[in-house]
Amino acid sequence: MADTPQAVWECLREFSGEVRELQGAHSVTYLNKPPSPLTFYRDWISSNRPCIIRNAITHWPALQKWTFDYLRSCVGYKNVSVAVTPNGYADAVYNGKFVMPEERNMLFADVLDIVEKKKKPPGVYYIQKQCSNLTEEFQELIGDVESHIHWMSEALGKRPDAVNFWLGESAAVTSLHKDHYENLYCVVSGEKHFILHPPSDRPFIPYEMYQPATYQVHEDGSFKVMDEESAEKVPWIPLDPLEPDLSMYPEYAQTKPLHCTVRAGEMLYLPSLWFHHVRQSHGCIAVNYWYDMEYDMRYHYFQLLDSLTKAIEHV
Amino acid sequence: MADTPQAVWECLREFSGEVRELQGAHSVTYLNKPPSPLTFYRDWISSNRPCIIRNAITHWPALQKWTFDYLRSCVGYKNVSVAVTPNGYADAVYNGKFVMPEERNMLFADVLDIVEKKKKPPGVYYIQKQCSNLTEEFQELIGDVESHIHWMSEALGKRPDAVNFWLGESAAVTSLHKDHYENLYCVVSGEKHFILHPPSDRPFIPYEMYQPATYQVHEDGSFKVMDEESAEKVPWIPLDPLEPDLSMYPEYAQTKPLHCTVRAGEMLYLPSLWFHHVRQSHGCIAVNYWYDMEYDMRYHYFQLLDSLTKAIEHV
Repeated sequence: MADTPQAVWECLREFSGEVRELQGAHSVTYLNKPPSPLTFYRDWISSNRPCIIRNAITHWPALQKWTFDYLRSCVGYKNVSVAVTPNGYADAVYNGKFVMPEERNMLFADVLDIVEKKKKPPGVYYIQKQCSNLTEEFQELIGDVESHIHWMSEALGKRPDAVNFWLGESAAVTSLHKDHYENLYCVVSGEKHFILHPPSDRPFIPYEMYQPATYQVHEDGSFKVMDEESAEKVPWIPLDPLEPDLSMYPEYAQTKPLHCTVRAGEMLYLPSLWFHHVRQSHGCIAVNYWYDMEYDMRYHYFQLLDSLTKAIEHV
Repeated sequence: MADTPQAVWECLREFSGEVRELQGAHSVTYLNKPPSPLTFYRDWISSNRPCIIRNAITHWPALQKWTFDYLRSCVGYKNVSVAVTPNGYADAVYNGKFVMPEERNMLFADVLDIVEKKKKPPGVYYIQKQCSNLTEEFQELIGDVESHIHWMSEALGKRPDAVNFWLGESAAVTSLHKDHYENLYCVVSGEKHFILHPPSDRPFIPYEMYQPATYQVHEDGSFKVMDEESAEKVPWIPLDPLEPDLSMYPEYAQTKPLHCTVRAGEMLYLPSLWFHHVRQSHGCIAVNYWYDMEYDMRYHYFQLLDSLTKAIEHV
């Protein structure tokens, strides 16, 4: 009976190895054009496999138009929501807490000045508000991209839940996490660096419970971490895939993350429930489309994986 | 540590309950016409949910033409492969062995005589050879049906691996099992009664290892079970869902099988890896299309379920 947790771990290791082999090469596949809705659904969405699609957004006016000067003249006067942190890590574990950024409302022109290093206030600035901020805060820019990706909408039989605009400094990092969305991530300028894990790596990716807190900037420019006092603890991944602490989380060594770079004019299909960590070139501009995932048998299989991991990880 | 198997069982029970809720009603959904390939892929194949489709085969000449007289005149002269058993159970557990039918080559006209009770030899007769016997043994009949189901072939991007012809007596029963095929099961005349379990019920469906054997008929008409001596033991499900032995297999009580009847002119979509047990009206004629399943993440999730079940079931 004492061997049961080991036997379960062995099953989970074999499973994640089999899924890793499905990916084939140790890199993300490139498609040279968007596939038909049916083909995309069958070969990528249903298979829950990432790919990078070329020539899917090359017709967007944004690729030519979105210089900093154009953006400044077009929407520089607007107040936008910006995540400000001392270290570039918004929504990440820091000193034993889950720390969220200061969400500062400021003129978009001022954000551009900071990214262009014309102004140098303390902290790291990242426009990353994932509440469909392209349609909510940057309506003037929608005509330069698309309100939805037609072949994806046809494949899924629905429109995106959110279209988000991203612009930030190279120090801004998105910590390892997963979303319950089918994600089309389009780079307009610069490049994004992704580290990816399939959902089957869940047993080897640590979660801990953390007190939520928020960065606040003092008048002298220093940052303070303030607890969200009434908030309950939240689960988050403490591990940094750039420097994984294998003495603390030895099971992570079982995984083989995929690394990929998405360049200007390319689109990453990031499947639902894939873990991802994101960095970027300085001033990178991107737009992403979040389509809600199907809560079907595969979703429940993932929930099983999650609950099994919790059942055996502390044995 | 002693609680680990119980905790794992609890995870598996919760998982199977969640998947059961996906099915919604406790019956199989009817569609009034074949959906588009994309819709069928997304809502049924990818979701791995069964449905009964009306008006998908009503244009087949077979529905009008395939009387016993027509079949006798058209293909009665041919030798066909027939499964013969003493009790109607081919490929099933009997007296602690996995017993396969005698596969007898006989005139199709003689099979029709037996089903029509013009001849009464000992045993139960069932044309059920699943090696694409419609295209191999009954080529003359293909024009009365279709060589593939065009919207399914388009959805899956491939043709069926096998098209099978089924005709047999009411005593002929197919024991509970699963296949690695997406199955379109079309009833031409009579009706088929299915008992279905989703793949998520795997932990509660018993498998045991059995010596393979085959029925052989003696000259006096009695049946003898002959071991396949050089064959290795095979896993099979000993449980009969019509009379489950819950004292022997108490976990089966966790399941809630779906029952459905597929009538002449209807098509059952039986998703890959669903467990099924089949009975039929006397002389029922059916044609089914087997399309190979995708060996994607969901397949490996099922393999995980299988290996987890084996790891904990004897603890």
